[in-house]
Amino acid sequence: MNGDGFFYHRRVAYVDTDAMGVVHHSNFLRYFEEARVAWLRARGLQAYHAPRYDLVLAVLESGCQHFKSVFFDDELILKMQIRRERLKIRFAYAIYCPERTDAAVASGYTLHVPLTQQLQVRRLPAPLVDVLEKEAWTETWP
Amino acid sequence: MNGDGFFYHRRVAYVDTDAMGVVHHSNFLRYFEEARVAWLRARGLQAYHAPRYDLVLAVLESGCQHFKSVFFDDELILKMQIRRERLKIRFAYAIYCPERTDAAVASGYTLHVPLTQQLQVRRLPAPLVDVLEKEAWTETWP
Amino acid sequence: MNGDGFFYHRRVAYVDTDAMGVVHHSNFLRYFEEARVAWLRARGLQAYHAPRYDLVLAVLESGCQHFKSVFFDDELILKMQIRRERLKIRFAYAIYCPERTDAAVASGYTLHVPLTQQLQVRRLPAPLVDVLEKEAWTETWP
Amino acid sequence: MNGDGFFYHRRVAYVDTDAMGVVHHSNFLRYFEEARVAWLRARGLQAYHAPRYDLVLAVLESGCQHFKSVFFDDELILKMQIRRERLKIRFAYAIYCPERTDAAVASGYTLHVPLTQQLQVRRLPAPLVDVLEKEAWTETWP
Repeated sequence: MNGDGFFYHRRVAYVDTDAMGVVHHSNFLRYFEEARVAWLRARGLQAYHAPRYDLVLAVLESGCQHFKSVFFDDELILKMQIRRERLKIRFAYAIYCPERTDAAVASGYTLHVPLTQQLQVRRLPAPLVDVLEKEAWTETWP
Repeated sequence: MNGDGFFYHRRVAYVDTDAMGVVHHSNFLRYFEEARVAWLRARGLQAYHAPRYDLVLAVLESGCQHFKSVFFDDELILKMQIRRERLKIRFAYAIYCPERTDAAVASGYTLHVPLTQQLQVRRLPAPLVDVLEKEAWTETWP
Repeated sequence: MNGDGFFYHRRVAYVDTDAMGVVHHSNFLRYFEEARVAWLRARGLQAYHAPRYDLVLAVLESGCQHFKSVFFDDELILKMQIRRERLKIRFAYAIYCPERTDAAVASGYTLHVPLTQQLQVRRLPAPLVDVLEKEAWTETWP
Repeated sequence: MNGDGFFYHRRVAYVDTDAMGVVHHSNFLRYFEEARVAWLRARGLQAYHAPRYDLVLAVLESGCQHFKSVFFDDELILKMQIRRERLKIRFAYAIYCPERTDAAVASGYTLHVPLTQQLQVRRLPAPLVDVLEKEAWTETWP
């Protein structure tokens, strides 16, 4: 886990566990979303999202791979990179749990399209485009 | 568990369990909501709810008591009764799991106020009032 | 949507919607799981899953594509096919919402490995293997 | 919102909203749980909870009142007080959203019983008892 890109920290909530004692896989999409919102805030873009602004980044696709189970109260670190793909935006995620392993415990991606609140495709606002152009992207992931 | 009132059946989903192997308590509010929606449908009132109609039954209060744990794939039966309280509607719920016990495993209530989609208090539509006047209510619950 | 394979029906719960008025994408993994459990039951295999039996089908990978938004109370039909891949099991899903469109509204997959309740890889029980060998699989999937 | 007691901060996640654009009521039980876990940590008691220790604080009862809607990305502050009631522990919560109102937007409580991981009632560990004896409790709430 090197130091480039954006990082988001969160602990595993008890409600996120299932009867195997591990985090239920559906929660990773929630963690990804939290990381995206934290990234918007870290980049000063929180004003460019509904309901404050007529934009949502609707999810077209998602994928997740699980390498190692994580447990209640584990501290997770989400590393993220973001790339504009014409009308779409791709986020890639790698999740680390340093107290368990140095390698990623999961990785994934989401692909988004900007929509209005009436679910119509719209252009990205200029400040968001500016930020996206400066984001680094590496093919080796995680 | 006698035969009066409205019944809703559902099985416990795996995602609803937690690391103790039991249903996490937060899911009971979801089960209550599913039962309310099923009741609206059973009474022919499904057209009187957003987004089809400018009405939501916003939750003002809720409460739940847990008497016995339930587990993955248990079949739950929700018994329900409904009462109008002037501008508000009260739903009372009792949850049974016949394969585990004859007594209720949980009980609860939700208190609602009718709102428009702009979150303003509104009158109940006449067909909903008509149905509410015919619902039975017993103080002994569950 | 032709008639082969396994089908699971469920309506969209209100809690599954988000501030855009549509189903939040994270719920599709929950719907997939419900369909898997329903398939186990339909095939008479519900006794071969924890906590009744020392087996869980842990999720190694998942993916989902979204083609069209779905809304509160929409009736969804999940079509599913299942294939054994050596030690793993692959489920493919297509979700239909006939009142909105004839085409699939979403599709996805999950890849599983059989684990004991102590999170160790284990062999599949014979009855599950027998059922898997009889499941049809088509490469064209919506 | 005065300065006594324990405070927990969290923002509203997008997935927590529903089709009315507000936080779905079922999420408040999740927020309460996060605040309890944060309180255990703040009091140095995180080692006295499953799976690290053979103790869970099972929920016997819960209740919630909603005074004002909250929205995506709102910053919530949970104020909490805790009281031992013989074998049980009561947590009371008040939720504030300073950017919307000075008054509480919701309040609630949960009542817990200490269980082993085999779901048997057990005694509280001494360090937890010691902490509970020092917690302040005021009847006026929120």
